[in-house]
Amino acid sequence: MDVSSFFPIWNKLTPVQQQLLEQNAVYRKVDKGTVIHNGSARCTGLLLVGSGQLRAYMLSDEGREITLYRLFDRDICLLSASCMINSIQFEITIAAEKDTSMWVISPDAYQRLMKESATVSNFTNEIMAARFSEVMWLMEQIMWKSVDKRLAGFLLEESKVEGSAILKITHETIANHLGTAREVVTRMLRYFQSEGMVKLTRGTVEITDLSKLDQLQNP
Amino acid sequence: MDVSSFFPIWNKLTPVQQQLLEQNAVYRKVDKGTVIHNGSARCTGLLLVGSGQLRAYMLSDEGREITLYRLFDRDICLLSASCMINSIQFEITIAAEKDTSMWVISPDAYQRLMKESATVSNFTNEIMAARFSEVMWLMEQIMWKSVDKRLAGFLLEESKVEGSAILKITHETIANHLGTAREVVTRMLRYFQSEGMVKLTRGTVEITDLSKLDQLQNP
Repeated sequence: MDVSSFFPIWNKLTPVQQQLLEQNAVYRKVDKGTVIHNGSARCTGLLLVGSGQLRAYMLSDEGREITLYRLFDRDICLLSASCMINSIQFEITIAAEKDTSMWVISPDAYQRLMKESATVSNFTNEIMAARFSEVMWLMEQIMWKSVDKRLAGFLLEESKVEGSAILKITHETIANHLGTAREVVTRMLRYFQSEGMVKLTRGTVEITDLSKLDQLQNP
Repeated sequence: MDVSSFFPIWNKLTPVQQQLLEQNAVYRKVDKGTVIHNGSARCTGLLLVGSGQLRAYMLSDEGREITLYRLFDRDICLLSASCMINSIQFEITIAAEKDTSMWVISPDAYQRLMKESATVSNFTNEIMAARFSEVMWLMEQIMWKSVDKRLAGFLLEESKVEGSAILKITHETIANHLGTAREVVTRMLRYFQSEGMVKLTRGTVEITDLSKLDQLQNP
């Protein structure tokens, strides 16, 4: 297991930069359930996932949670090193949802790379934009919340009609039923899958947690 | 009015970069109420505010709105040039809240600067992080704060921006800022009035007890 084969833009770094990164990345294994970063610690480091699954979430003063996004193989978590970027003025918590192996990259070293390399800085920009986009998507769901409910309702209805938990149906067809875009349905189904409510295979949607889906529809 | 005196990191650019920026920035004046950018147009350009006030908001399919953040003098709007960064996968609308003068900077030219200059790229990173932080703050408000607190916060913020205790604003507009229904706002304002915190007349909300409103916001 070597950081060089996991860091997405490794080949765009100079040998000196590669060496800097290698020397400042610590390989670490954590068990499922481990809290790796909490908001008050501004500089845990950048997390580069080798294998496993991390969950980034927001935590209220009262202990309520909401999942912001998840990180899988080769994903990088920037917000666990928010001291690197002055304008990041919020706190998130990151925990392992599965047994996870990762590299923890020193914020100081990474910041040095960002400062000297436009390539690294632009790459970092893309990472932040990707997380920002996930949060905006979630915000839309929270605010207008119609598509998820309608999709949940549709799947339950379809399952009843077919007398089966396994629906042979394309995302396109579902989109046509709901009068929305296929991309929206695909994204939502993937979200449902990540929440354990459905299982997706090519051409089918299997309902795996009917009551959770029903609860989403009628909260 | 010259872009050089408004662009925040002008002095860190090389003469060639300064020239590129100058040649690709168009000075524009827009009236209050003008929609400058809507989500479907991915590349309106970067907006550098000279004077005035812009509002960035999210728009639902049903025409509901919620204010994400505002832009004032020397602020830069990046998300009106989201084509520059592949991973920005969301749409916002930007409108002038006051008569506004600004420079519209070509995304192609700016992207060229970002690609060649780590300084520009890191600066861009900071801008995005600042907007991301504002959206995260809003998300926290929506998730954990009740409407009365958010309304109190909005009235205080608005009063500060306008420099007046008397706000010329409709309940509908407030509802659009907060992403809630007009009826909810009207009901809450009447409650505030009965508590002596505001005084309502047709088309205005007057803050009559600032400290009580503030206490409601931050108990």
